[in-house]
Amino acid sequence: MSVVQIVEPKTDIRAAMREIGEKARVAAREVANAPAEKKNRALFAGARILRERVGDILAANELDCEDVRAKDLSAALIDRLTLNSTRIEAIALGLEEVAALPDPVGRVLATYTRPNGLMIERVATPLGVVGVIYESRPNVTADAGALCLKSGNAVVLRGGSDSFRSSAAIHACLVAGLKEAGLPEAAITRAPFTAREVVGEMLEGLDGALDVIVPRGGKSLVERVQREARVPVFAHLEGIVHVYVDRSVDFDKALKIIVNAKMRRVGVCGAAETLLVHRAVAPFLLGKVIDALIKAGCAVRGDEAAREADTRVTPATEEDWRTEYLDAIISVRVVDSLDAAIDHIETYGSHHTDCIVTEDKVAAERFLKEVDSAIVLHNASTQFADGGEFGFGAEIGIATGRMHARGPVGVEQLCTFKYRVRGDGQTRP
Amino acid sequence: MSVVQIVEPKTDIRAAMREIGEKARVAAREVANAPAEKKNRALFAGARILRERVGDILAANELDCEDVRAKDLSAALIDRLTLNSTRIEAIALGLEEVAALPDPVGRVLATYTRPNGLMIERVATPLGVVGVIYESRPNVTADAGALCLKSGNAVVLRGGSDSFRSSAAIHACLVAGLKEAGLPEAAITRAPFTAREVVGEMLEGLDGALDVIVPRGGKSLVERVQREARVPVFAHLEGIVHVYVDRSVDFDKALKIIVNAKMRRVGVCGAAETLLVHRAVAPFLLGKVIDALIKAGCAVRGDEAAREADTRVTPATEEDWRTEYLDAIISVRVVDSLDAAIDHIETYGSHHTDCIVTEDKVAAERFLKEVDSAIVLHNASTQFADGGEFGFGAEIGIATGRMHARGPVGVEQLCTFKYRVRGDGQTRP
Repeated sequence: MSVVQIVEPKTDIRAAMREIGEKARVAAREVANAPAEKKNRALFAGARILRERVGDILAANELDCEDVRAKDLSAALIDRLTLNSTRIEAIALGLEEVAALPDPVGRVLATYTRPNGLMIERVATPLGVVGVIYESRPNVTADAGALCLKSGNAVVLRGGSDSFRSSAAIHACLVAGLKEAGLPEAAITRAPFTAREVVGEMLEGLDGALDVIVPRGGKSLVERVQREARVPVFAHLEGIVHVYVDRSVDFDKALKIIVNAKMRRVGVCGAAETLLVHRAVAPFLLGKVIDALIKAGCAVRGDEAAREADTRVTPATEEDWRTEYLDAIISVRVVDSLDAAIDHIETYGSHHTDCIVTEDKVAAERFLKEVDSAIVLHNASTQFADGGEFGFGAEIGIATGRMHARGPVGVEQLCTFKYRVRGDGQTRP
Repeated sequence: MSVVQIVEPKTDIRAAMREIGEKARVAAREVANAPAEKKNRALFAGARILRERVGDILAANELDCEDVRAKDLSAALIDRLTLNSTRIEAIALGLEEVAALPDPVGRVLATYTRPNGLMIERVATPLGVVGVIYESRPNVTADAGALCLKSGNAVVLRGGSDSFRSSAAIHACLVAGLKEAGLPEAAITRAPFTAREVVGEMLEGLDGALDVIVPRGGKSLVERVQREARVPVFAHLEGIVHVYVDRSVDFDKALKIIVNAKMRRVGVCGAAETLLVHRAVAPFLLGKVIDALIKAGCAVRGDEAAREADTRVTPATEEDWRTEYLDAIISVRVVDSLDAAIDHIETYGSHHTDCIVTEDKVAAERFLKEVDSAIVLHNASTQFADGGEFGFGAEIGIATGRMHARGPVGVEQLCTFKYRVRGDGQTRP
């Protein structure tokens, strides 16, 4: 097996990255004012070129995969990295779906007239330059590039070194699309270095060029970005997601929601990690729910009440309430009241997504009001925590920060706004 | 004259400030869920108590003023610091005005139903804990405290040491109001130390307790906060505000707007600093405008064309285009086109507030679209850049950052949002 090494010439990474940032900023002004048709033409052309170049992309990807196999890394990593024609077609379709979304730029968010006749409009405008730092999934190159372009932003992409060649090949298609549409190539820029310093440079903001950073990858990446970034970050560190079953409940509905929330896909951020059950219904509900979860392949850890309900339940420790398993494991706790459930969620949760299952509308409204999470649900699976399911078309991620974007981050959330004021000679007394 | 020294016991400032942060966070959860009436009751009570304690407040203020006079600081500082019964009445009225605003918390910002029947709502929620760092104006204590409480946030206030006793006296009234309304006293907290370390601690975020920092004061304070804060900041460093007069223009309207934009109040961030005039109208307009400005008491610096129009114009240097005078000085430049005007503004401006004066709607729309400032105006004075003038009731400041709040920051901008999803047992396939 021939291992192809990526040889990188000695470069002043800082200077090179700052130059990239500067060019992206210039391009940002152009794409911010570009008409929707032009951006869409670039995305459709990018999709077409991706399909035309499937061979090249697969060849580049094979080189990346060979390197990773030589390093003997995990099967999961290789799976995330590997492309095939189906996956490339999905990437191309993704570009076309983003192109088909309504244009988020220029939307009038509010409009009113002041007593002095001034007409004030709040209107959506692009954020500017988005930095995206991701790991081995090469498709992020296209997904993130498309969402940023659609929202009128320039983007600086920094993919993991494992997928370096695959990302480069996909990126080249996007750039060819930009060229066809007459848009600046620097609107979707990719850091052409594997050097780790690139991440540090981006976290510092490329000398003021980056307006926001979006990390896409595992917890250690997000943690580092949140800790070190000198610019705002759209991200969530973890999703310690709760389903709480209140005292007045439809058992079948609860069962269906709990099993779906936990087991539909265990590795997504909207997957439930902890089940809270009101003490009043625990005797009737708990045994059945635990049995269903175990039958679905889930390991159950619980407090005393849960262990009494089913002997297969192992003891949950304090640590369990703080753990995002991202696996077929759930922690179960019986609580004395709605207040106790909310307290548990506020103490151990991550303000991502939490759900109440109940037929009691008053309890539901209190939960929806008082639980301080980006997404709060009543009688629906937490696995709906997703930009697509919210009707955003696509998302660049889910944010748990409180500023600007909270919850799924789609093209609208990649915009800021400004005020347009129209007068007829008004002066201020 | 007896100078009363503030004696501060040796305290572990870091520990004390973190404890304040922790208590504010607990209080934040309570005020976030407090009904509007309760918050308003606290503000009305605070206003009443302020009026009852005018004597105490003036006595405290006199001690602050004595200290400052003993240090022989500037008259402007003493003016900013000095309270009298009129100013205290204005502070009380301000509290009542904020109380009278519509409650921003719980507003439904968007609502829609998905094909699967899920009802999704985006609803305004408080940001959490706001840190406010200000200088000598003691009224900020009340203004900022009221805006934060109204928007359901807790606030940690850190005023300048010059106004230490005045701020403490005003703060005590707000706290008494909170108590009367049955709200936690820690909802409006004030750092009870003059030590400079307090600012550093707040910029670090009080161990995660602060969600955002708002600096209120001069450029050096804002600069430091923007540079060092580890949490998001709502602020503007400067307002290099432009008025651009395009080729198709109503002379009288232009004259009126320019003189008002520059001279109504020269020290506010919305005051014009640079006048750009299209070359086609310069011969007709420039002489008249410059004469009017000079007659109004403004010094005019300009390029060659401006100096030819009026010999009293002194030469403008490159530095002038980058200067926020905050004084009766204006820089004037003749440009060849709308594009050149936009380029000038994008190159030298501060993305705060910029205005076009023209009767040409197409040119106006291009300017409003392409100038990337928080506020862009057509045929209206830039001095309207103010939350009150925008109908926000009151503002905690004007932000030029691109995230979350841009332009005037009122109670609505001190809120974030969350998604409430209502289902009837939906699970994700």
